[in-house]
Amino acid sequence: MARMKGLAMLDFDKIGWIEKEVPSIGPNDALCRPLALSPCTSDVHTVWERALGQRHDLILGHEASAEVIEVGSLVKDFKPGDKVIVPAITPDWQAVESQSGFSQHSGGMLNGWKFSNAKDGVFGDYFHVNEADGNLAHLPDEIDPVDAVMLSDMVPTGFHGADNAEVAYGDTVVVVGIGPVGLMAVAGCALRGAGRIFAVGSRKRCQEVAIQYGATDTVNYRDGDIVEQIKDTMGGKPVDKVILAGGDNDTFDQAVRLVRPGGIISNINYLGTGDYIKIPRVDWGLGMGHIRITGGLMPGGRKNMEYLSRLMVYGRLDVSPMLTHRFDKFEDLEPALLMMKDKPADLIKPVVKLY
Amino acid sequence: MARMKGLAMLDFDKIGWIEKEVPSIGPNDALCRPLALSPCTSDVHTVWERALGQRHDLILGHEASAEVIEVGSLVKDFKPGDKVIVPAITPDWQAVESQSGFSQHSGGMLNGWKFSNAKDGVFGDYFHVNEADGNLAHLPDEIDPVDAVMLSDMVPTGFHGADNAEVAYGDTVVVVGIGPVGLMAVAGCALRGAGRIFAVGSRKRCQEVAIQYGATDTVNYRDGDIVEQIKDTMGGKPVDKVILAGGDNDTFDQAVRLVRPGGIISNINYLGTGDYIKIPRVDWGLGMGHIRITGGLMPGGRKNMEYLSRLMVYGRLDVSPMLTHRFDKFEDLEPALLMMKDKPADLIKPVVKLY
Amino acid sequence: MARMKGLAMLDFDKIGWIEKEVPSIGPNDALCRPLALSPCTSDVHTVWERALGQRHDLILGHEASAEVIEVGSLVKDFKPGDKVIVPAITPDWQAVESQSGFSQHSGGMLNGWKFSNAKDGVFGDYFHVNEADGNLAHLPDEIDPVDAVMLSDMVPTGFHGADNAEVAYGDTVVVVGIGPVGLMAVAGCALRGAGRIFAVGSRKRCQEVAIQYGATDTVNYRDGDIVEQIKDTMGGKPVDKVILAGGDNDTFDQAVRLVRPGGIISNINYLGTGDYIKIPRVDWGLGMGHIRITGGLMPGGRKNMEYLSRLMVYGRLDVSPMLTHRFDKFEDLEPALLMMKDKPADLIKPVVKLY
Amino acid sequence: MARMKGLAMLDFDKIGWIEKEVPSIGPNDALCRPLALSPCTSDVHTVWERALGQRHDLILGHEASAEVIEVGSLVKDFKPGDKVIVPAITPDWQAVESQSGFSQHSGGMLNGWKFSNAKDGVFGDYFHVNEADGNLAHLPDEIDPVDAVMLSDMVPTGFHGADNAEVAYGDTVVVVGIGPVGLMAVAGCALRGAGRIFAVGSRKRCQEVAIQYGATDTVNYRDGDIVEQIKDTMGGKPVDKVILAGGDNDTFDQAVRLVRPGGIISNINYLGTGDYIKIPRVDWGLGMGHIRITGGLMPGGRKNMEYLSRLMVYGRLDVSPMLTHRFDKFEDLEPALLMMKDKPADLIKPVVKLY
Repeated sequence: MARMKGLAMLDFDKIGWIEKEVPSIGPNDALCRPLALSPCTSDVHTVWERALGQRHDLILGHEASAEVIEVGSLVKDFKPGDKVIVPAITPDWQAVESQSGFSQHSGGMLNGWKFSNAKDGVFGDYFHVNEADGNLAHLPDEIDPVDAVMLSDMVPTGFHGADNAEVAYGDTVVVVGIGPVGLMAVAGCALRGAGRIFAVGSRKRCQEVAIQYGATDTVNYRDGDIVEQIKDTMGGKPVDKVILAGGDNDTFDQAVRLVRPGGIISNINYLGTGDYIKIPRVDWGLGMGHIRITGGLMPGGRKNMEYLSRLMVYGRLDVSPMLTHRFDKFEDLEPALLMMKDKPADLIKPVVKLY
Repeated sequence: MARMKGLAMLDFDKIGWIEKEVPSIGPNDALCRPLALSPCTSDVHTVWERALGQRHDLILGHEASAEVIEVGSLVKDFKPGDKVIVPAITPDWQAVESQSGFSQHSGGMLNGWKFSNAKDGVFGDYFHVNEADGNLAHLPDEIDPVDAVMLSDMVPTGFHGADNAEVAYGDTVVVVGIGPVGLMAVAGCALRGAGRIFAVGSRKRCQEVAIQYGATDTVNYRDGDIVEQIKDTMGGKPVDKVILAGGDNDTFDQAVRLVRPGGIISNINYLGTGDYIKIPRVDWGLGMGHIRITGGLMPGGRKNMEYLSRLMVYGRLDVSPMLTHRFDKFEDLEPALLMMKDKPADLIKPVVKLY
Repeated sequence: MARMKGLAMLDFDKIGWIEKEVPSIGPNDALCRPLALSPCTSDVHTVWERALGQRHDLILGHEASAEVIEVGSLVKDFKPGDKVIVPAITPDWQAVESQSGFSQHSGGMLNGWKFSNAKDGVFGDYFHVNEADGNLAHLPDEIDPVDAVMLSDMVPTGFHGADNAEVAYGDTVVVVGIGPVGLMAVAGCALRGAGRIFAVGSRKRCQEVAIQYGATDTVNYRDGDIVEQIKDTMGGKPVDKVILAGGDNDTFDQAVRLVRPGGIISNINYLGTGDYIKIPRVDWGLGMGHIRITGGLMPGGRKNMEYLSRLMVYGRLDVSPMLTHRFDKFEDLEPALLMMKDKPADLIKPVVKLY
Repeated sequence: MARMKGLAMLDFDKIGWIEKEVPSIGPNDALCRPLALSPCTSDVHTVWERALGQRHDLILGHEASAEVIEVGSLVKDFKPGDKVIVPAITPDWQAVESQSGFSQHSGGMLNGWKFSNAKDGVFGDYFHVNEADGNLAHLPDEIDPVDAVMLSDMVPTGFHGADNAEVAYGDTVVVVGIGPVGLMAVAGCALRGAGRIFAVGSRKRCQEVAIQYGATDTVNYRDGDIVEQIKDTMGGKPVDKVILAGGDNDTFDQAVRLVRPGGIISNINYLGTGDYIKIPRVDWGLGMGHIRITGGLMPGGRKNMEYLSRLMVYGRLDVSPMLTHRFDKFEDLEPALLMMKDKPADLIKPVVKLY
């Protein structure tokens, strides 16, 4: 049996390189080799914040572009040598939840998330992709494999926030949190025709990139309550939508106080601690204000990758301003992941190129 | 100036008959005389629970069928003598919020609610209707004016709960609370094609009527935690939708634990006390479970009245099982309202016939 | 290799019993044995109207309930002996079209329709089901396998017509054609809360059953132009929605003349001949009337079967009035199919029970 | 009675300056004075193509920015001296159709279109605005009154085409016709996140501006059948959406042949002649292909103006490349209108500045 190397969670708070067998594939599956990789804040949650519980020797990572190495007997649309986009979420497409439009939850809540959760992730010499025809997408020639890594999670998560917020022409939107997901939410709002976009965050570099992606105003929570700051700017008027790509359970309180009757609060932030999200009763219209609160894991799968990648092919979206730190050896994955944990001021995303 | 009598809130905890001038109308408005009236739990909230704050000599009531007495110069579709359905919510139709599909909030959160809130209600010899062409509907011959009173609030509120829950063919729905609004939510679910409907409430009479309106299961919260009771019946599976027509801030916790990823929680319950609605973080999928939480005041206006009344004209909906206590003198309004406050076991709705 | 018998299209205009090998199944598939079968007008189109082109020895049929005989190695939720509902449409769930919400067209226009089209149908001793976990549904104990045959095509097609028409509370709807599909469209409208429902058809029995399913008015096209008849009844006012379950290309002309601005025309009728559907320019508002015209093949798959079957489990829908002619031997399939071709006046659907 | 001058349709094929009384206003209305004006192809249809039938001395024009001169007693949000955006469509907001979300058809098909149709248009010294609070919007300081004229019709019509097509991230869209409305449809698609956009038109200048607004490909119908040209470029694959901003009844045939199952054809083209729009049966999936065909008049009213204008305020949309011919005297309206009729090759829109 062939062996391979991978960067794994060894125990709580502990990562390291391990050796494992190369995964075997079933008739619907594919085996891939990464072309470029990026660590995600979720990897940090998994290892250092115990978000998924204990794991031993679980290979990390869910952001990759790749080359197909081997395909199962029933795979029709991919063959060895194909370059592919790999979504972080790879649903079971026959599941009732997928048929209901919520493939992220195929087989149960959040169960479409398999990499570095239900099985080994992409930070190995090779990785396994379930239902390859449904979960891979051909990488267009126009997209650099390094840029394509952003299509795994950052772009679809940020854009899903804007989709769930049903951003429409001229909407005023607040995006809370302008790490890479929040920045993609800003870009997603601009590309759904938002008018004014408030980007809430404290890091200078992120604010600058937010402006590049279409934010019209930046708000620093260190300068005072963001509700007051935004309401002042708006002459007391509410905004149409709020997208939460940062903050915590209590940020929903601020969001409700910002949004108009009939508005939407769309969460894409992984809420890692605390018992309850708090919705302020009076500002929520005593339960009758038509302020919709929702939150959702990004949709994975081939179709979403194909459509989102067109925004890069046709020059509507340039992810390169997010790739602030670039590495070029497999071994660099470890410092790249630690960098994601330590978040230096000028970091948005590190990426590791492997070709 | 002509004078009239009305049943009013005199002070916190105090109601009584007062005399006032007959309201004058503007060019878009109508003056009406009630044909039948019904007190609402909201009137109880207003007087005895201080829900809207202090009011002196405010005529109560927002559920009525009526006869048009006088119309403004610009009113085109109604004339004196017309029998009409009167919605509890009478929006300003030019408002931006109305143009956005949220006429309930025309001019600001909940501002479409004018009767017994922003102006005198319908419990008088006469009452004023703003924007008559947009807010009244002709009473079809097939509908008894007594039954028509249920179209003011109970039917549209209950059915709005089902609409906001986007109940679809075969859905499993839990309706929490089976007072008159909850019962109409049950009927509304059945008329949107729900499959299984759990009706949660303790009163025998209400349970019986819930079954008549299409509930398949009744659940008594006195028999134990409703989440456990329902999950047991469902073999541990989640439901598609929850409609809250009763309970309090904490009931949202139960609702989130009942509903599937991609499901909807639709509140139509007036939340009168407490600071925060609590959303359980883990059951809400760590913010990524696509469980939508919303709540909304019924849509008023003519169109909604015309469409909902057709369900009664064509025999899809019979409101008479709800009208458990019938009175026939204007003076009976006072005991009818006190009955709504005291909620005897066999009460669903009292109604006062005036013709 | 085991052999089996089936009722097949031998040539244009010619059916007969043939012998074939029992189909072999792949890892995702199932082999089933019918419990009850029903011929469909589409089978008649295929053989006698050359709708799909020439076919030799193609086993017909796509309406069945069944027992699972064998499953592929990757099938998780079904095992031999399970009784199942079998949808006429069995999509490829990984396809981009399925991920886009149009599984009927997985792999191309109408390609979700496989039985008696891309492969042998269900009128054999055995039949093959692709992607069994995604395309079969467990038959609830409460549903008779004979009734369950109506879930393959008649119920989902009729109800899809109502779904695509976005029928809402109180809507006035015209259903053109009251064969079995049109009758299910009527039932589907009533179960989405329609108010007035005009059922257009000439056969007495069908009219009676239409009333049972919730039609409020019947219109016979032999009594004159249906547009005039309906407009007269409506006092000249337009209706909200039109569902086409009968007629031909020209019926769209009538539909456009019936429907209001903002209304919807929803076709579920197989349009077998002619070059062009005709939309009348002036009545279509010179292209600006917001009259939406759409038409769609029923959605297949497990989820739809599970949800629709609940309507039968909970007593919202009784399909038995449609099953006017009942047979009980496999050999009876041939006369049953010929009956569907000849359409005697009292026929709605023939069904063959095999257990 | 004060008199005023205006440019009117005198008779079929004949325009000229007339004198009329200054219109009087009711309690909900406003009297305005134009700041800038633009003639529209619809004015040409009205006069020279007899689109609305015979009219004598009807003042033309429905594209204007303006100053408020006088307001009715019930108008709350506008006062004399206010600078305003004026939508071409000014609905009756109390109408049932408006409450149903189709204010364009308030009171009947297309009846929201009042200027130069049901009453005198904006090409006068003064003009009348019904329901001013609902139909005017304050002109933001950031928008030039000349640019603001494009908000009356060109921007909302083009963007409505994109809205009705439900353009989503990465969609491939064909826009047929790249006069000013088609160009705004292109911009609207880009601002809803379209991927590839084919702009179909023959004029060089329009093609160049289409690229500026986000088109990725231009197609000239003079170079051959547009279906073949586009399919060739697409490797035979269908597109997601088609927006018709030009062509005629037969263009729908091409649109159906271009679009995928589940796709949408959205018409914003005024269809002036011919009896029937032709939908090709086979390409429309025999009535079952889920290809939606719709078409709609732009939504007017205040809300739409406020939201769309934000796209100009925040720099998302620059209408100036469309304003190819600029005039600065009231008298210039006549040559500007004739220019619209004659369509010189370098014309997109003429505009007349009056301040």
